[in-house]
Amino acid sequence: MKNTFGSSVSVTLFGESHGPAIGAVLDGLAPGIPVENAAIEQALALRRPSGSISTARQEPDPFEIISGVFNGKTTGTPLCILIRNTQARSDDYAATRALVRPGHADYTAFCKYHGFEDPRGGGHFSGRLTAALVAAGAVATAALRGKGICIGTHIARCGGVADRAFGDLEADLEALRTLPFAALDAQAAADMQAAVSAAAADGDSVGGVLETAVTGLPAGVGEPWFDTLEGVLAHALFSIPAVKGVEFGSGFAMAEGRGSEMNDAFRREDGKTVTATNHNGGVNGGISNGMPLLFHCAVKPTPSIFRPQQTVDLFTGEEATLQLTGRHDPAIVHRARAVVDAMTALTLCDQLALRFGTDWLAPAAEAAP
Amino acid sequence: MKNTFGSSVSVTLFGESHGPAIGAVLDGLAPGIPVENAAIEQALALRRPSGSISTARQEPDPFEIISGVFNGKTTGTPLCILIRNTQARSDDYAATRALVRPGHADYTAFCKYHGFEDPRGGGHFSGRLTAALVAAGAVATAALRGKGICIGTHIARCGGVADRAFGDLEADLEALRTLPFAALDAQAAADMQAAVSAAAADGDSVGGVLETAVTGLPAGVGEPWFDTLEGVLAHALFSIPAVKGVEFGSGFAMAEGRGSEMNDAFRREDGKTVTATNHNGGVNGGISNGMPLLFHCAVKPTPSIFRPQQTVDLFTGEEATLQLTGRHDPAIVHRARAVVDAMTALTLCDQLALRFGTDWLAPAAEAAP
Amino acid sequence: MKNTFGSSVSVTLFGESHGPAIGAVLDGLAPGIPVENAAIEQALALRRPSGSISTARQEPDPFEIISGVFNGKTTGTPLCILIRNTQARSDDYAATRALVRPGHADYTAFCKYHGFEDPRGGGHFSGRLTAALVAAGAVATAALRGKGICIGTHIARCGGVADRAFGDLEADLEALRTLPFAALDAQAAADMQAAVSAAAADGDSVGGVLETAVTGLPAGVGEPWFDTLEGVLAHALFSIPAVKGVEFGSGFAMAEGRGSEMNDAFRREDGKTVTATNHNGGVNGGISNGMPLLFHCAVKPTPSIFRPQQTVDLFTGEEATLQLTGRHDPAIVHRARAVVDAMTALTLCDQLALRFGTDWLAPAAEAAP
Amino acid sequence: MKNTFGSSVSVTLFGESHGPAIGAVLDGLAPGIPVENAAIEQALALRRPSGSISTARQEPDPFEIISGVFNGKTTGTPLCILIRNTQARSDDYAATRALVRPGHADYTAFCKYHGFEDPRGGGHFSGRLTAALVAAGAVATAALRGKGICIGTHIARCGGVADRAFGDLEADLEALRTLPFAALDAQAAADMQAAVSAAAADGDSVGGVLETAVTGLPAGVGEPWFDTLEGVLAHALFSIPAVKGVEFGSGFAMAEGRGSEMNDAFRREDGKTVTATNHNGGVNGGISNGMPLLFHCAVKPTPSIFRPQQTVDLFTGEEATLQLTGRHDPAIVHRARAVVDAMTALTLCDQLALRFGTDWLAPAAEAAP
Repeated sequence: MKNTFGSSVSVTLFGESHGPAIGAVLDGLAPGIPVENAAIEQALALRRPSGSISTARQEPDPFEIISGVFNGKTTGTPLCILIRNTQARSDDYAATRALVRPGHADYTAFCKYHGFEDPRGGGHFSGRLTAALVAAGAVATAALRGKGICIGTHIARCGGVADRAFGDLEADLEALRTLPFAALDAQAAADMQAAVSAAAADGDSVGGVLETAVTGLPAGVGEPWFDTLEGVLAHALFSIPAVKGVEFGSGFAMAEGRGSEMNDAFRREDGKTVTATNHNGGVNGGISNGMPLLFHCAVKPTPSIFRPQQTVDLFTGEEATLQLTGRHDPAIVHRARAVVDAMTALTLCDQLALRFGTDWLAPAAEAAP
Repeated sequence: MKNTFGSSVSVTLFGESHGPAIGAVLDGLAPGIPVENAAIEQALALRRPSGSISTARQEPDPFEIISGVFNGKTTGTPLCILIRNTQARSDDYAATRALVRPGHADYTAFCKYHGFEDPRGGGHFSGRLTAALVAAGAVATAALRGKGICIGTHIARCGGVADRAFGDLEADLEALRTLPFAALDAQAAADMQAAVSAAAADGDSVGGVLETAVTGLPAGVGEPWFDTLEGVLAHALFSIPAVKGVEFGSGFAMAEGRGSEMNDAFRREDGKTVTATNHNGGVNGGISNGMPLLFHCAVKPTPSIFRPQQTVDLFTGEEATLQLTGRHDPAIVHRARAVVDAMTALTLCDQLALRFGTDWLAPAAEAAP
Repeated sequence: MKNTFGSSVSVTLFGESHGPAIGAVLDGLAPGIPVENAAIEQALALRRPSGSISTARQEPDPFEIISGVFNGKTTGTPLCILIRNTQARSDDYAATRALVRPGHADYTAFCKYHGFEDPRGGGHFSGRLTAALVAAGAVATAALRGKGICIGTHIARCGGVADRAFGDLEADLEALRTLPFAALDAQAAADMQAAVSAAAADGDSVGGVLETAVTGLPAGVGEPWFDTLEGVLAHALFSIPAVKGVEFGSGFAMAEGRGSEMNDAFRREDGKTVTATNHNGGVNGGISNGMPLLFHCAVKPTPSIFRPQQTVDLFTGEEATLQLTGRHDPAIVHRARAVVDAMTALTLCDQLALRFGTDWLAPAAEAAP
Repeated sequence: MKNTFGSSVSVTLFGESHGPAIGAVLDGLAPGIPVENAAIEQALALRRPSGSISTARQEPDPFEIISGVFNGKTTGTPLCILIRNTQARSDDYAATRALVRPGHADYTAFCKYHGFEDPRGGGHFSGRLTAALVAAGAVATAALRGKGICIGTHIARCGGVADRAFGDLEADLEALRTLPFAALDAQAAADMQAAVSAAAADGDSVGGVLETAVTGLPAGVGEPWFDTLEGVLAHALFSIPAVKGVEFGSGFAMAEGRGSEMNDAFRREDGKTVTATNHNGGVNGGISNGMPLLFHCAVKPTPSIFRPQQTVDLFTGEEATLQLTGRHDPAIVHRARAVVDAMTALTLCDQLALRFGTDWLAPAAEAAP
């Protein structure tokens, strides 16, 4: 399988940046889950460029649900969402396609597709396709919320600025649902945006680190080998363009500590077994332990910059200098948070359906309409 | 699929720490690949505890090839390797099983398997099972070497000590094939082992960071979405017990830099397109670009420590204090390097077979015996 | 995976009979394969009701290629084909939905989707969705023809009338490419259509048997166990609504013969190893042997008939009598042949890509445009 | 995946006829299911040659459970069963391997594995491997019986002799559990065995048709497209060596009837919706309807016969005459019934776990030991 992810609940992604449309097929989700256009629009809005630090380009995401929803609820059969590319242009890409952009997929796409790939705007590799993931993810998110499972991602670091740590998770996740720029601390948000603007003024770009929390996930989900919860989530998260690292719980910092610091002691709280700390990020032995799931994603700086870059001409094989023009985001980390949420939701729906059956995510009071 | 990984080339893992045997089924590898017992023994030796910093326990790995090899070469049909548990004991686990070990899978195994899991020595979750992965990986490694693809992993950090960076990759990877303690710098190796011993003297444990390089991988391997080379490798690597983070190329450090620093400029060298730097770790847009594949794995400190730990009794639900006895490694990062190599080899064989067909890994001069 | 089939080359199906559109995502096909609208239209025409024996209803199939084609050729990324439902109606289904139609999926859909399924016109279970499979199959067929692999299906039996057996396969398969009613013998075609008309006049329906031949398939494709060529094809073919039996070569008739009659002796012809007979239908031990692939599919009579039928009310649980009205085909076997061709093409593309790599189906003279 | 079948519950098969052992890994089955050696032995006994019509060769099946069972119950982790090849011989196969046996996989194995395959006794293609499937199937069967789901297969036709049809399914399935030669009618059993003996006396072989019934399967299992219950079962059943046709319900006979005869009218019985007839074999639209699942498998005559056969020399490419010697079954249909039962049980366990979750097959009263 290439552009399909998941087993019991799966998503199939298609489209190119400048083709007629992009879209996703979300399959296997339980029947009876409410599908609200407003929720999809809200998720898409969080992914869209906003404010001074993003490209001025308008990028509306007019979506159409092609299938899988009847009377406002999922049918259980494939839900296809189509997003038209309203600004698709067939204009002159030939002039620039020969010069592969450093840090982008232009060169590797050529190696894989032998020049038959659609090069316009990154084609199938474009970050534009994440809009379809976010739309599908919004439906998955609604399903999870119906079972008390909440997901939220904030910008832990960007442009040398650190956000505050997660605190009251319930409140933080609720706030993140509508926060356009996902730093929990307002000053950090302002500083991050200033840092992005400064990079933009230099014709440059910045990256960042996203931190995600998931609450309400039952214990006992995941497999001991291979399909560990961490492995499957990382698999999903590395699909997101620009993600170059994934760590769970204290992650790389665990490697620096001792066992006595990093083991999470068990204790009892309100009749439940919990851990006193959560360095393991809610996963032991590949399986959820009932504590919040915690992970970070490293997002590299946007490769599209306005400085001259050394590159190679695909067709002549000669070295050349690339000078990009046009509109490009000086950072995408603040947009990627919506994609991280979406991929997390899609992955967890799959894991839960595999574990507890295909009806588990359906609303409790199932009834034929 | 639960204990099976891979699509065209797959590995299936079975066994429990104290059952009769553990083993792996390696399926889909091309026919005609030489299978040498010495290579498997060598890989197993690198995984085995060695020297003063590992448990004194003898853990021989007497393997038997059950199927899939004929006249010393792979047949192309499933290759099953069985490793008997020579020290299997059915002794008194009941006394300790109720107290779940912090940082281990005892509690999550109970949540998933409802108490029917084999608890002796960690059962199916035991690091012991990685021996079977290493044995299967040794066959995959031989297949890759036949095509000029080399893999090597060193201990980049352990117990606060850093190894030197990779230098001449060809020489370093060659050295790592037989280095019992995989630090490239001899002093660093000594210091790391001293740090491990110090932790052991405290009844404690340490973790570390492994760095892996792969040379010779062709460009054009991997998928743009979901089955990105990074995603699939991370999926595999997170199966390794104690791995809590995976990053490619400069990984989390990329998130701190600017695009102008992190983009890898393209240039020509010996008639080939290469990159001047390799911050992206050999992967752009999910697809290999022909540069060395580079990644780090964070390995947490061994959860088995000899200090009293707070925990919970599985059956009474009461809080309790756990005091481990017996033999436990104060670090596993130096052993995990062999498992990282194995999982990398198995994953790359699958990716290459998917991309280029099931015969691609077969030796060039195919001939019926 | 639910509505996705295939591994290296896959197809994902979505849509409902009366929703906005149906469609398919064809993923993993090699880049550079010509995609001609005329070929897709031709395949769709063969699936469409034609002449007096099919419903009078006009059912145009206006398709749109959403992605995966650039400059008239496949890009190698997902190819999404959308077919709008021009005659979608939201009208009064409530009156009839309670009475589940015998032989249809109404009752089982309710058992699986708990009443949330779209019941209009069969919803996601509608034979209408096969149009999307046929459109995707037309692209796969073009890819196979580029490698000298041809597929054709005729109506071996329908309404008690038998077609002549396959003769000169090359000529027969060529004729079938455009034959609107796929009986090789003109008189048989006329008799079959008369039999269908007679059934229709009785308010009844008929079924039939389809026979498929594939020429040019290389030897060595398929797996010894589980993913046998027969098993994978049968898996695909049973997806086709109304198919209730699949047999390879002489199939059920082999069960009646002796080994001396049914073994296909090997001999040499033009420097190639061939078999003197082909009772095994081109497959030994699950793997293609280079002879034509031959199989039959049993297609049951259309369940929609105009006679009163006993059924049950889904909501009251009471027995009731169902009297269908509207337009329904008295036979679909003559239309199903196009779907059998499509599923065969899609399945073989997958098998070939798995065996020989993802570029194998690409035209020989690959060149960047 | 090649020698692995299933998704949530899977089986991986390994071994060669004359290697040290064959085996299977059964993964994903719920924890807590009793595993009784006697049940496995009983299933293996039904597969073993018995009486005058089978080869005189003793073929004991001494199995060892390597993993996945603790205190007599499944742990939920992979269950590996190993069956030693006690009569493995490395003797002189070279003399005969060049002459590929008609109807066998010798030639196609060579096309696929290029001569590296183990040719001794059919190697990995040997029917011997079905013993491992039967052993794994016995565990799956026990799990299903715990949920009231029963499977049984009788020899509907063999050597021109027909068994009586299924009658009282409960009684018939119970009888089949221990019937060594699975014809329900004693006279038919005797006549079939006489027919097999007559063929054997001619140096020839016969095939037959197996009919399987499954009772107790819940409605709502299976998918509308691709992973239809019929498609998935057929996929599994065609793995069984010698199976060349699979039909559900009235199968190919449905193609000859009219809709009014073949539609199964719904009615109510004991508060349940049932069908008056069962021409559809318990499946509508790919999904179980709660009626007994019914299907036939066509088993071709054993290809190993003692008559001279025309064939080709693999290495010289010249035509040759093959005269088999040694011991070979003149029929395998009476043995294949045990394999059909096993593959059915394994497939249904997977389908049920996918539908209802991984714990569904666990005994109702789950409790930690």
